[in-house]
Amino acid sequence: MIVIKIGGASGVNLDAICADLASLARQGQPAILVHGGSAETNEISTRLGKPPRFVTAASGFTSRYTDRETLEIFAMVTSGKINTLLVEKLQKAGVNAFGLSGVDGRLMVARRKDAIRVVENGRKFMLRDDYTGKIETVDARLLALLVEQGYLPVIAPLALSPEGDALNVDADRAAAMVAGAVKAEKLILLTNVPGLLRQFPDESTLISHLPAAGLEQALTFAEGRMKKKVLGASEALGLGVREVIFADGRVENPVQAALAGKGTVIS
Amino acid sequence: MIVIKIGGASGVNLDAICADLASLARQGQPAILVHGGSAETNEISTRLGKPPRFVTAASGFTSRYTDRETLEIFAMVTSGKINTLLVEKLQKAGVNAFGLSGVDGRLMVARRKDAIRVVENGRKFMLRDDYTGKIETVDARLLALLVEQGYLPVIAPLALSPEGDALNVDADRAAAMVAGAVKAEKLILLTNVPGLLRQFPDESTLISHLPAAGLEQALTFAEGRMKKKVLGASEALGLGVREVIFADGRVENPVQAALAGKGTVIS
Repeated sequence: MIVIKIGGASGVNLDAICADLASLARQGQPAILVHGGSAETNEISTRLGKPPRFVTAASGFTSRYTDRETLEIFAMVTSGKINTLLVEKLQKAGVNAFGLSGVDGRLMVARRKDAIRVVENGRKFMLRDDYTGKIETVDARLLALLVEQGYLPVIAPLALSPEGDALNVDADRAAAMVAGAVKAEKLILLTNVPGLLRQFPDESTLISHLPAAGLEQALTFAEGRMKKKVLGASEALGLGVREVIFADGRVENPVQAALAGKGTVIS
Repeated sequence: MIVIKIGGASGVNLDAICADLASLARQGQPAILVHGGSAETNEISTRLGKPPRFVTAASGFTSRYTDRETLEIFAMVTSGKINTLLVEKLQKAGVNAFGLSGVDGRLMVARRKDAIRVVENGRKFMLRDDYTGKIETVDARLLALLVEQGYLPVIAPLALSPEGDALNVDADRAAAMVAGAVKAEKLILLTNVPGLLRQFPDESTLISHLPAAGLEQALTFAEGRMKKKVLGASEALGLGVREVIFADGRVENPVQAALAGKGTVIS
């Protein structure tokens, strides 16, 4: 089993990814797709008169402040638009894709971070009423059931709290948890860069191989969004995934190129 | 098996419906929920600067003109927002709800009406590029699989064309096709009126029982949206569903009231 995460960053070639997944499906390679949707959520929430707000946690990580209205827009865009259009694209390519999010059948249960310590203009305070979560369990049995029936699951980054609240979760870390739960051999994170760069955005500084022990140091030079991918890689390896590959989602056959070792291979 | 369709019309009490479904689930009654989302799609498309456009077919039926942009908004709202929030509400009530739309695993395949003959201001013409479909098949095996695993399927009104295009479908008729496919004993259509009224909106003219043979005549006095429900009832009975009930979705225990015969029972 391989798990592939695709971001919504500009340049990522969804047609090439879907055609590649169809080719892998014909070769009998089971796969699970996890997607994000930050960029498109920003655009649509702005058009709806609710521009996104990002906050920086005391730990240094930046995340979307998700009040209830933002959560509903996030669900609309990720689960309704991006997920449906990905399933449509895969179906057109001949793959029997099946879209779902973590709320469906409690696929992903997350602990709600109902109060986050944030820093804004040097001032520290607690933000409450946030509908963001950290995934604690992924129902591998449900995913196995879908895969056994010949479906390719396509997962939107929502989870359910134990109390039943829908939550926004980070898609990179969701992909890591899914890969760990289904005991995937490989987790491939496709982005709009060739992999982990020692000096972003200089693509000539691509790191082609990184031992797991080097991940902590990578956190120091990974730029913005890449930080969460590094965290995800670390979580996935900790859960028994053998290899995590950061690879280029802009090229032809991006999944097969990653499987062949192109990008940053972490093991 | 019972199939319940809920509309998005104002007044329909989603909390009462979900609590009632939870009570039925505890009694061991398997169910499938189908929902619409017209009203909310109108609101959100208007906010996004793309107000809805309705067209009247030569046959007299009114439907949403669904160009590609409208289809994507429709998917966003029905599959992303309404479906997710219904699943969340049911999960909170203790029901293991599982949301999907007709594109997922090709649950519903529809013939695309790519050119519709419409009448506008007395002028007849053909409208093309419409992403609306008429459901031809529903995968009962997939629904049975979910129900066997203890899930309550919650279905959004999207289908896939044989060519793989996502299509907007009428939710009442989708519910009828689902009920037929799973050989449901009863199909319950919950609305914001007590049932079929001989003289809309006079609730004292409620028809409490209608033989199937009376459906054709009912088309002559059924108002607007109710016409499609009458068509759906006729289709469901034709597919072997024993009873179709038009019932009030505004009351407490609306599903159990309908099962007890409140509303318009068609058999």
